[in-house]
Amino acid sequence: MKNLFADRMNKVHKSFIREILKVTEDPNIISFGGGLPNPKSFPVTEIKEVVSKVLSENGEEVLQYSTTEGYLPLREYIAQRYAKEGLMVHADEILITNGSQQGIDLISKVFLNKGDNVLVEKPTYLAAIQSFGLFEPKFKSVPLLEDGADINAFQRVLDENKIKIFYSVTNFQNPTGITYSKEKRQQVAEILQNTDTIFVEDNPYGEIRFMGEDIPPVKSYLEDGILLGSFSKIVSPGMRLGWIVANKEIMDKIIIAKQASDLHSNYFTQRVVYQYLIDNDVDEHIEKIKKMYKKQRNLMVKMIEQHFPDDVNYTKPEGGMFLWVTLPEGLSSLDLFDIAIKENVAFVPGKAFFADGSGNNTLRLNFSNSNEEKIEEGIKRLGKAIYELMGK
Amino acid sequence: MKNLFADRMNKVHKSFIREILKVTEDPNIISFGGGLPNPKSFPVTEIKEVVSKVLSENGEEVLQYSTTEGYLPLREYIAQRYAKEGLMVHADEILITNGSQQGIDLISKVFLNKGDNVLVEKPTYLAAIQSFGLFEPKFKSVPLLEDGADINAFQRVLDENKIKIFYSVTNFQNPTGITYSKEKRQQVAEILQNTDTIFVEDNPYGEIRFMGEDIPPVKSYLEDGILLGSFSKIVSPGMRLGWIVANKEIMDKIIIAKQASDLHSNYFTQRVVYQYLIDNDVDEHIEKIKKMYKKQRNLMVKMIEQHFPDDVNYTKPEGGMFLWVTLPEGLSSLDLFDIAIKENVAFVPGKAFFADGSGNNTLRLNFSNSNEEKIEEGIKRLGKAIYELMGK
Repeated sequence: MKNLFADRMNKVHKSFIREILKVTEDPNIISFGGGLPNPKSFPVTEIKEVVSKVLSENGEEVLQYSTTEGYLPLREYIAQRYAKEGLMVHADEILITNGSQQGIDLISKVFLNKGDNVLVEKPTYLAAIQSFGLFEPKFKSVPLLEDGADINAFQRVLDENKIKIFYSVTNFQNPTGITYSKEKRQQVAEILQNTDTIFVEDNPYGEIRFMGEDIPPVKSYLEDGILLGSFSKIVSPGMRLGWIVANKEIMDKIIIAKQASDLHSNYFTQRVVYQYLIDNDVDEHIEKIKKMYKKQRNLMVKMIEQHFPDDVNYTKPEGGMFLWVTLPEGLSSLDLFDIAIKENVAFVPGKAFFADGSGNNTLRLNFSNSNEEKIEEGIKRLGKAIYELMGK
Repeated sequence: MKNLFADRMNKVHKSFIREILKVTEDPNIISFGGGLPNPKSFPVTEIKEVVSKVLSENGEEVLQYSTTEGYLPLREYIAQRYAKEGLMVHADEILITNGSQQGIDLISKVFLNKGDNVLVEKPTYLAAIQSFGLFEPKFKSVPLLEDGADINAFQRVLDENKIKIFYSVTNFQNPTGITYSKEKRQQVAEILQNTDTIFVEDNPYGEIRFMGEDIPPVKSYLEDGILLGSFSKIVSPGMRLGWIVANKEIMDKIIIAKQASDLHSNYFTQRVVYQYLIDNDVDEHIEKIKKMYKKQRNLMVKMIEQHFPDDVNYTKPEGGMFLWVTLPEGLSSLDLFDIAIKENVAFVPGKAFFADGSGNNTLRLNFSNSNEEKIEEGIKRLGKAIYELMGK
C-alpha cells in the first residue's frame, strides 16, 4: 500500500509522553510521569448509588440517543456553578464534549484553515499541540512568566502576526503549574478585546485550588472568549465528560462540528454525572481532593528543597497536579531521564511541551497520583540523579 | 465579530433531519422520521446489574483515564465475534470509538486532503456526508440497485476519477434498507483490490438481520478494507460505543488521530458493556430485537401494500430499521411532508440523503422505534396523504 495518508498526518505524532511512560510500567519504578488524578479521589460508592437510581427511574431514556448539545439540566448546572463564581453564561452557550480535549478538536474544526497561526504558551499542554496540529496551523509561542504570559512578548507576537487562536491554560497549567494573576488576565483580555483573535481558555484544574484565592477566568473580562471545562479532575476522567462555553454565534458552529464528529457525547454518563452532582455535596468532595493534593504538593516541595541542588529551579503551584523543574542551562532532562530510570524514578522530560522544540533543561513532575511514601523516596532518588548529571 | 470561521464550516450544515424532526415533537403526530432503535429493546435490568458489579470490583480503575485504543478484553471480544462469522482480525486491528460515527471523522482525518474524492452511495447515510464534509472533499455518487451498488456505474466512476475513499453501508442501509448480495460484495472487493481507493464499510445494522442469510462483509474479500461497527443497535446508542477495524499500518495513524481528538472513548461504559456482553446471552438478546423489528417491518409492508397507490415503490428490507419509498417521478416528498403533517404523520424526505441534491421523490420510513398500533394507523394516514398529493 503506498502512502495514501493525508498531509496532516505527517505533522502529528504519537504522544511522546505515552511512549516514554511505557518504560515506567515496571512496578519498581516510582513514576512522577503520568498526568492522572488520584483514583482514591473518585466517588465510587456515590456513583454506584446514582447509576442504580438513574437506570431504575429512566433506564430506557438514558440508554437512547440524545441531543448534540448535551443534557440540558447538566448544562444548567454548569451555568449555575459559573454564576456562583460571578461568570454569567446561559445553558445554551454550553455544549457537553467527550472530555475537554474534544473541545480543542471542535474549536479547530470551526476556526482553523490550514496555515492559520495558533499562539500557545511556552511550554504548553502537549495534547493541545497534537489536537490543533491535525488542522495544520503554524504555531507561535509566548513565554510564560511566574504570573502568566509575558505581556510584552504577547503584544509583540500579536502585532507582528495575524493570530487566529490564542490557547491558554490559565490555572495551574499543565505542565508548569503556573497560574495567571488577576492583573495578567485583565491585560490579556484588554489586548484581545475587539481583535480577530479567538481566545481559548482551557481550565481543567481550576476547581483544584488548594492555596491562595480563586481568580475569575479571563472570559469574565472578555465576553467572546471560549472557555473549556471538565469533570475529569473533580468526578472521573474515565467518563470523558467536559464542556465548551462559547457565545451563541460560535456555539451554532460548534454544534454542527460536534454533530458531524460523533453525534453527541455519552448520554448515559451525562445522566449519571448530573445525578451525582445533585445528590451529593460536590464542594465537600472537592475539599477532600484538595486536601490530599495539597499534602502531596507540600511534601514534594519540601523534599525538593532538601534534595535538589540550589541552582535547580522549580514552581510552587497553588493547585492542580503538576510541578515544573528547570535545570541549569545546558543540561538535558533526557540525559537525566536515563540516569533516573536506573535509580527507578521517572518523570516527563519538558521538551515535549514546547511547540518550538526548546525546553531541553526542563521536566514535569506529577504529585496528584502518588502518595507520601513515594514522594519522599522518589524525590530523594531524583535528587541523587540530578547531582550525578551535574557531576557533583 | 467578523466571520472568522474556517472555510469548511461553509460547506456543512445542521442536520436537515434533526431540524425537520423538531416539527414532529407534537405527541399527536405519528412519526416514522427518527432513526432510533426501540428503547424497549434496551437491556436496562442487565446493565444495572453489571454496572454495580464493575464498580464494586474495579471502581477506581474504571473511573480512571485509560488507553487510546480502548479496553483490550472488549476488543478481543469483538475480534472473537468476527471470527465466528469467518472474519479473522486481531484485537490490535480494532479501536473503540465514541460511536461508529466517530469512525468516519477519524478516517477523514487520516486520509482526506482538501479536494480528495469521496464516493458515496446514492442515497447515502446523511451524517456521513456531514462528517466527511468537514474535511472538504468532493463527493461522487454511485446509484444503488436492489442488491447493492450499480457495478457498471461503480467501475466507470473509478475509471474516470481518482477516488480516495468509497463509503458504503452494506447491510440494511440507512436510508434505503438495501443489502449488498454476496456477488456484489465480491465484485466490489475485486474492483478495489490493489487500487489506491480506501474502502470504508459501515455496518451498524448487520446484527439485526431478521430474514434471509448472513452474508460476509466485503472486508472478508478485501483485506485492506476498513470496517466500522457499533453497539448502538444491539446494546445502547446512548453509551456511544462503536469501533473501527483496520490493518495495522492504518490503525497506527487512526490511534494518533483518536489521541488528538479526545484521548480515548468513555472507559467506564467500555467496561460496563464488556461486562454485559460476557455475563449475558447476547445472541438471545439480539433474537428478541429481531423478533420485534421483524413484526413491525412485516406490518409496515402489509399496510403499505394495502394503503399506498400501486405506482409507489418501496424496499422490503431483510433487517435493520428503515424502509425506503419512491414516489412516481415528478412528485416531491417535501410537498408530501406538508400534507402528511396535517394528517399527523411524519417521515424524512429523501432529498437529505443525496450528496448531489437529487432524490426529490423519495422518503425514509423508520419501523424500529414504533409499535403495531402506530404503524397501522400511521401508514393509513400516509397513504391518504399520498393519494391527496397525487390528486387521486
